[in-house]
Amino acid sequence: MKKVRVAILGIGTVGGGTYQILTENHDWIAAARGLDIEVAKVLDKSVDRITAKGVPANKATADLNDILSDPSISIVVETMGGVEPAGTFIMKALSAGKSVVTANKELISKRWSELEATAKKNGAGLYFEASCVGGVPIIRTLNDAMQANRITQLYGIINGTTNYILTEMTEKGKSYAEALKDAQALGYAEADPTADVEGFDAMYKLSILSSLGFHTCIPYSEIYREGITAITPADIAVGKDFGYTLKLLAIGKRDGNDVEVRVHPTFVPNEHPLASVRGSFNAVFLTGDFVDDIMLYGRGAGARPTGSAIVSDVVYCAERSAHVYSDFDNNGKLDSAIKLKKDFESAYYISLKLADRPGVLSKITNILGSYGVSIDKAMQHGVADNYAPVVFFTHKTDETSMRKALHEIETLDVVHSVDAVIRVL
Amino acid sequence: MKKVRVAILGIGTVGGGTYQILTENHDWIAAARGLDIEVAKVLDKSVDRITAKGVPANKATADLNDILSDPSISIVVETMGGVEPAGTFIMKALSAGKSVVTANKELISKRWSELEATAKKNGAGLYFEASCVGGVPIIRTLNDAMQANRITQLYGIINGTTNYILTEMTEKGKSYAEALKDAQALGYAEADPTADVEGFDAMYKLSILSSLGFHTCIPYSEIYREGITAITPADIAVGKDFGYTLKLLAIGKRDGNDVEVRVHPTFVPNEHPLASVRGSFNAVFLTGDFVDDIMLYGRGAGARPTGSAIVSDVVYCAERSAHVYSDFDNNGKLDSAIKLKKDFESAYYISLKLADRPGVLSKITNILGSYGVSIDKAMQHGVADNYAPVVFFTHKTDETSMRKALHEIETLDVVHSVDAVIRVL
Repeated sequence: MKKVRVAILGIGTVGGGTYQILTENHDWIAAARGLDIEVAKVLDKSVDRITAKGVPANKATADLNDILSDPSISIVVETMGGVEPAGTFIMKALSAGKSVVTANKELISKRWSELEATAKKNGAGLYFEASCVGGVPIIRTLNDAMQANRITQLYGIINGTTNYILTEMTEKGKSYAEALKDAQALGYAEADPTADVEGFDAMYKLSILSSLGFHTCIPYSEIYREGITAITPADIAVGKDFGYTLKLLAIGKRDGNDVEVRVHPTFVPNEHPLASVRGSFNAVFLTGDFVDDIMLYGRGAGARPTGSAIVSDVVYCAERSAHVYSDFDNNGKLDSAIKLKKDFESAYYISLKLADRPGVLSKITNILGSYGVSIDKAMQHGVADNYAPVVFFTHKTDETSMRKALHEIETLDVVHSVDAVIRVL
Repeated sequence: MKKVRVAILGIGTVGGGTYQILTENHDWIAAARGLDIEVAKVLDKSVDRITAKGVPANKATADLNDILSDPSISIVVETMGGVEPAGTFIMKALSAGKSVVTANKELISKRWSELEATAKKNGAGLYFEASCVGGVPIIRTLNDAMQANRITQLYGIINGTTNYILTEMTEKGKSYAEALKDAQALGYAEADPTADVEGFDAMYKLSILSSLGFHTCIPYSEIYREGITAITPADIAVGKDFGYTLKLLAIGKRDGNDVEVRVHPTFVPNEHPLASVRGSFNAVFLTGDFVDDIMLYGRGAGARPTGSAIVSDVVYCAERSAHVYSDFDNNGKLDSAIKLKKDFESAYYISLKLADRPGVLSKITNILGSYGVSIDKAMQHGVADNYAPVVFFTHKTDETSMRKALHEIETLDVVHSVDAVIRVL
């Protein structure tokens, strides 16, 4: 049986999950795949931290050189997170000819090109299934199952924290602040939740997934991003009445050389398979020119599902003598042939407070109409504080027209406030 | 760029789709994967049949030897269907050292062992992603993404014909006969629909998927199978009222060495992700000990999605110098360690017509109770032809107790008929 010796860098949540799988399911993997995978070394800041997780002391180290200098270790698993020192450690491992399996989406989306070039130069593999959508095999699917297709659309609920918060707001009417607090208490959100709730995490993942899906470099800096902090339970409830569920959606589209990539709150029609992805579950909905629609659904985070993706990469890597690399250089710039569309087409939900006077509504619709924005549905729900809360759902329009119309609407003296503007799928 | 010459055996629907992808997306695949894939030969019963599909005459042949004797052809795609002559042709191709990509679920589930042994002996690859669930990468996921896990459950809607028929019955109230006729008119069902509607197709696929998922041989002959021909729109409507959607479900479970495998109509709770898989779409819902629940959803059939899976196998095969084989021998017998459970546990829906007299209902519930079957919900819906139609939903019970109870119930003189017995997920 082929012996494979692995080192794990960082024994936090995901590193711990990985260690647990490789220990508990060692014999199962050996029987099923003919691989005897041994965790040879575990690195963390201190040896005590490692042994506290049940790792034998002789495998624990705080010195990377113990791993780099051991030629019997062929695969290094990086589960430290963050750009540094993870980036330096991975570069050293690749330079030493060791293959790397990482769960680090931020690092991959920022330094993919450099890492991949170093991997290639040293004949090492670079695998990062665990960097996107936890246990869901979305990278394997894009790389090894969609090769026949031009992917034209990629819609993802790819951040579990925000999906948990939005589900709580939707199903229990919680405010954003309450739902965030509960998510933090459950360990679904960090003390500083910015990376999740402002859409950075989803942006990094979309950069990786759309690059792989569209076979071109999509730098994360080109992705339009909007978080969920301004969402109210009232907006969610109105959307519900009209048959929509609010999701933080990562959207990528490619039509010839026109590409658009964006992360923002989106009302999804309830009939769409993504609408029923609840709580901390994630899903990616893809369309290819031949395969048509497919969706992958599962746990987007957590020690065990993310550990499952890492171990899947370890086995995949160990079974291959020659590694396969991406076909493009993620060098931070768009390919010159690609036209990045910034003026998205979308339908919109708009919530306003208007003076409770005759003729006010027609002023709004006239302005919208003058910019070519036509209304699909409208509703006035009672009168509050002398103002009439009104919502509109528009037909599809371009972003620029909508912004101009809103700008003009905001200046009207009969408009008390524009409370929410949310895109509709 | 690596040149790959491919032959296609059988230019029907799926073979035609494969040819179309390899022609239309040739340059895209070449740019994305560095593979120049050429269809070198297409075989069918007559050359005219092939050229009618737009294949140049110099690539058309009715003689397998034209393919076997061409050493430049490294991959043979089999899209003829049926056990013979497909089986003989594949064996000859493998024996000639050519890798085979096939969409043939019946052949794989009947002769996998022999085919794989021949592939191994000749250093050839054997790939069959397209044999199960069309464009959905379920085999890739089981082989290359779930390696860390013991799969404990596999629930699939893996036959598009029956899912289309049941969806039409559910959403439009059609009878089984009407829905079947419409499915035939649309090309979703064959003139003789037996293989689909009696569950044989799902049984073959479950045999393949559960073998791969559970890492042991599950012969199709060991799978319990029940079709959808006795389903009525009335049962579906009652289920709907109670929050269930009827699906033909393929179910596999493994708990240690206890395995159960079955295909039968099943009421699925509406909250379950499988309940919303409509029309000709398919999905597989898996549970692994580490990954937890995942679901893959997409088109289970059709020229383009199935062609997508075939071409994905062609690329996957062409990119690998060493092929990976299954870890077990599907030799038609269960591994001696495996205990196949025939006495399934399930909740049940029972529909009966009872005499419209006092005390009748309690006779039924007493019998059920005497076999340990407890009732979850019950409903009497009016009186028809002097008989009261009554439905029960039971809690989980074992199959044997339920059968005994039903047998006793059927002999009661107050029971006009037991109209339906459907398992509930």
